Amino acid sequence: MKNPVYKLIELTGTSHLSIEDAVNKALRRANKTLKKLSWFQVIETRGSVAKGEVDQWQVTLKVGFTVDD
Amino acid sequence: MKNPVYKLIELTGTSHLSIEDAVNKALRRANKTLKKLSWFQVIETRGSVAKGEVDQWQVTLKVGFTVDD
Amino acid sequence: MKNPVYKLIELTGTSHLSIEDAVNKALRRANKTLKKLSWFQVIETRGSVAKGEVDQWQVTLKVGFTVDD
Amino acid sequence: MKNPVYKLIELTGTSHLSIEDAVNKALRRANKTLKKLSWFQVIETRGSVAKGEVDQWQVTLKVGFTVDD
Amino acid sequence: MKNPVYKLIELTGTSHLSIEDAVNKALRRANKTLKKLSWFQVIETRGSVAKGEVDQWQVTLKVGFTVDD
Amino acid sequence: MKNPVYKLIELTGTSHLSIEDAVNKALRRANKTLKKLSWFQVIETRGSVAKGEVDQWQVTLKVGFTVDD
Amino acid sequence: MKNPVYKLIELTGTSHLSIEDAVNKALRRANKTLKKLSWFQVIETRGSVAKGEVDQWQVTLKVGFTVDD
Amino acid sequence: MKNPVYKLIELTGTSHLSIEDAVNKALRRANKTLKKLSWFQVIETRGSVAKGEVDQWQVTLKVGFTVDD
Amino acid sequence: MKNPVYKLIELTGTSHLSIEDAVNKALRRANKTLKKLSWFQVIETRGSVAKGEVDQWQVTLKVGFTVDD
Amino acid sequence: MKNPVYKLIELTGTSHLSIEDAVNKALRRANKTLKKLSWFQVIETRGSVAKGEVDQWQVTLKVGFTVDD
Amino acid sequence: MKNPVYKLIELTGTSHLSIEDAVNKALRRANKTLKKLSWFQVIETRGSVAKGEVDQWQVTLKVGFTVDD
Amino acid sequence: MKNPVYKLIELTGTSHLSIEDAVNKALRRANKTLKKLSWFQVIETRGSVAKGEVDQWQVTLKVGFTVDD
Repeated sequence: MKNPVYKLIELTGTSHLSIEDAVNKALRRANKTLKKLSWFQVIETRGSVAKGEVDQWQVTLKVGFTVDD
Repeated sequence: MKNPVYKLIELTGTSHLSIEDAVNKALRRANKTLKKLSWFQVIETRGSVAKGEVDQWQVTLKVGFTVDD
Repeated sequence: MKNPVYKLIELTGTSHLSIEDAVNKALRRANKTLKKLSWFQVIETRGSVAKGEVDQWQVTLKVGFTVDD
Repeated sequence: MKNPVYKLIELTGTSHLSIEDAVNKALRRANKTLKKLSWFQVIETRGSVAKGEVDQWQVTLKVGFTVDD
Repeated sequence: MKNPVYKLIELTGTSHLSIEDAVNKALRRANKTLKKLSWFQVIETRGSVAKGEVDQWQVTLKVGFTVDD
Repeated sequence: MKNPVYKLIELTGTSHLSIEDAVNKALRRANKTLKKLSWFQVIETRGSVAKGEVDQWQVTLKVGFTVDD
Repeated sequence: MKNPVYKLIELTGTSHLSIEDAVNKALRRANKTLKKLSWFQVIETRGSVAKGEVDQWQVTLKVGFTVDD
Repeated sequence: MKNPVYKLIELTGTSHLSIEDAVNKALRRANKTLKKLSWFQVIETRGSVAKGEVDQWQVTLKVGFTVDD
Repeated sequence: MKNPVYKLIELTGTSHLSIEDAVNKALRRANKTLKKLSWFQVIETRGSVAKGEVDQWQVTLKVGFTVDD
Repeated sequence: MKNPVYKLIELTGTSHLSIEDAVNKALRRANKTLKKLSWFQVIETRGSVAKGEVDQWQVTLKVGFTVDD
Repeated sequence: MKNPVYKLIELTGTSHLSIEDAVNKALRRANKTLKKLSWFQVIETRGSVAKGEVDQWQVTLKVGFTVDD
Repeated sequence: MKNPVYKLIELTGTSHLSIEDAVNKALRRANKTLKKLSWFQVIETRGSVAKGEVDQWQVTLKVGFTVDD
């Protein structure tokens, strides 16, 4: 497949731990239904606050994957 | 589900009445096939013109919804 | 005219009523001197304040119209 | 005061009715503690969804006001 | 259907030939599974390099299509 | 004229062939009524789709030209 | 005229002296043919270089003016 | 309070450890004087360099909190 | 204080003279009530027009200052 | 080399023919002095005008290449 | 040197571990050939995916350093 | 050389006097090692504050210059 076509979808992963963990949670979920995940790009990093600290990281990313012919 | 994953899709709602009505038309259509719509963000407000007035409002929005585990 | 050329101009419409009314006021004025208005895009929504409420909505839009051959 | 200095603050107004109402709710609240509100600019229009329609409009705006000497 | 709802998806088409060909490759693939493709907008133009020349054009576009009632 | 003033206008050229041809169609039309076109900048590349391929390229550009004293 | 309509045009003023002088040169030229100039906004500041110093400041601005009824 | 008004302020948190720690340091400080912190959004991630490594992470965020009636 | 927290506020300074003077007018006013001003960033340069020249420069800036522990 | 470091430089290629040719001219020149060119991204497409047509395409791109250890 | 001149270069650091580690890898490599690295700004956070998790973080940053007289 | 290739670099010039002086200081330094500087574009205007006034203007610019064949 010399010239593949990719589709990009937008997901928000959430985590109590870190930005990296929120990204991985989104990718793991996408991987359940989509084959051939290829790359991602972080679009926005937000979160909720509780007791003066980050309660939940909310990281929005675009994920690109190969579309079968 | 402490750390849900959300998916965001992009829709353009259209209306002869108002920006608010165009947003609601897009949300109503999305609600037919997607469960758990959560939030939206207006991305662009355009429209077509007829007889020197707005003929159709065309409002593009991102809609976020929870993805089931 | 298979492949028309369009010109885009930028206008600010103002209204005491609503965003939609400000857009229509700009389009009505443009329609007096320009034929073939086709579409618009909202660029910015601002306003002036009086007595703690919106006094005047100021909506800047691009308006596209067909240029005659 | 020929050359005033202005301060800009960022507020999110919310409303079940419309974008315009959400802006006015934010301005009314600001007017309780700030004198001399002068202008505003809409920064972002978001909202929450319930039953496939807009539940609450959330409109973020910058509000400018004159700073006393 | 006076006031249709459109959905926008994001695709990356690739081509050894040209930007135009990369766009067409993405549209042709989308057309296999989506009816009523209506318009597109180029979002980003990238590519890979080999031997000091463009090896593959990678053009990301948003494609809009009518959603059935 | 050591320090000229330039005006910039915004045009959308359209073509069935290519991005380059759409730009040239807009410039040719502008050249009919404006003297001293100097430079352009591509602002947006969109298009319409028919039968799963690009039907019409729609390229919006800013065109700069010298304003006579 | 309670709710005027404004038009915005884009100009590039040039000057060997300063950014401020380039803006004024553009406004003076616009004032020859347009009545009721009201405000401007600087869009871009560029320039040409000669002998390792700025040769010509090139400042692009949007100028807003009231459109007569 | 069905339709609250939120205020957003902008803070830069700094840390020798990580982006997450810089965000938390800013939130903890804000929590000393502001009640009802609700959410944040990362605006910019910068830092200073010493001995070829990050010396201090500097993360600018907007923090939103409910304004009392 | 190894890892200070900074707050950023947004001000518009105005001047009949120059961009630099408008920035200084805003900083001088901020310095009356805020200790430890540290840096600024110009966000927007606008102005009003009278008799075909700049009447008042209006420069919006973000000002950062150290927040005490 | 599991985790390479890449450098990105910005170039403007120019051509009388097409956008694609302008990109290739920039890449060919970069390839004379830089080894391991990997990818590029188009940043801006401008040009000069002569006789109402594009005289020279001026395409600015970022080019990424592997930095040796 | 009261008024130094700084140069900014753009690098992409990569890491299997974290965003912070990718930034440090880029800074360490830059430090081999550039003296007086001063600050950096994160421009983009991307990555590749393998087995439904982040395989490699790819963080693009601008790095600023003092240029000697 | 009909179709030259240009390189763009990013510099921050600093000055106690003015924005214009900061730009010239950056260009003068670049001119020591680079031949054929052609144009520049201001990217960002920042500064440090001392005693409630601008202490140092920090102006970041892109400078374009012809690359020899």
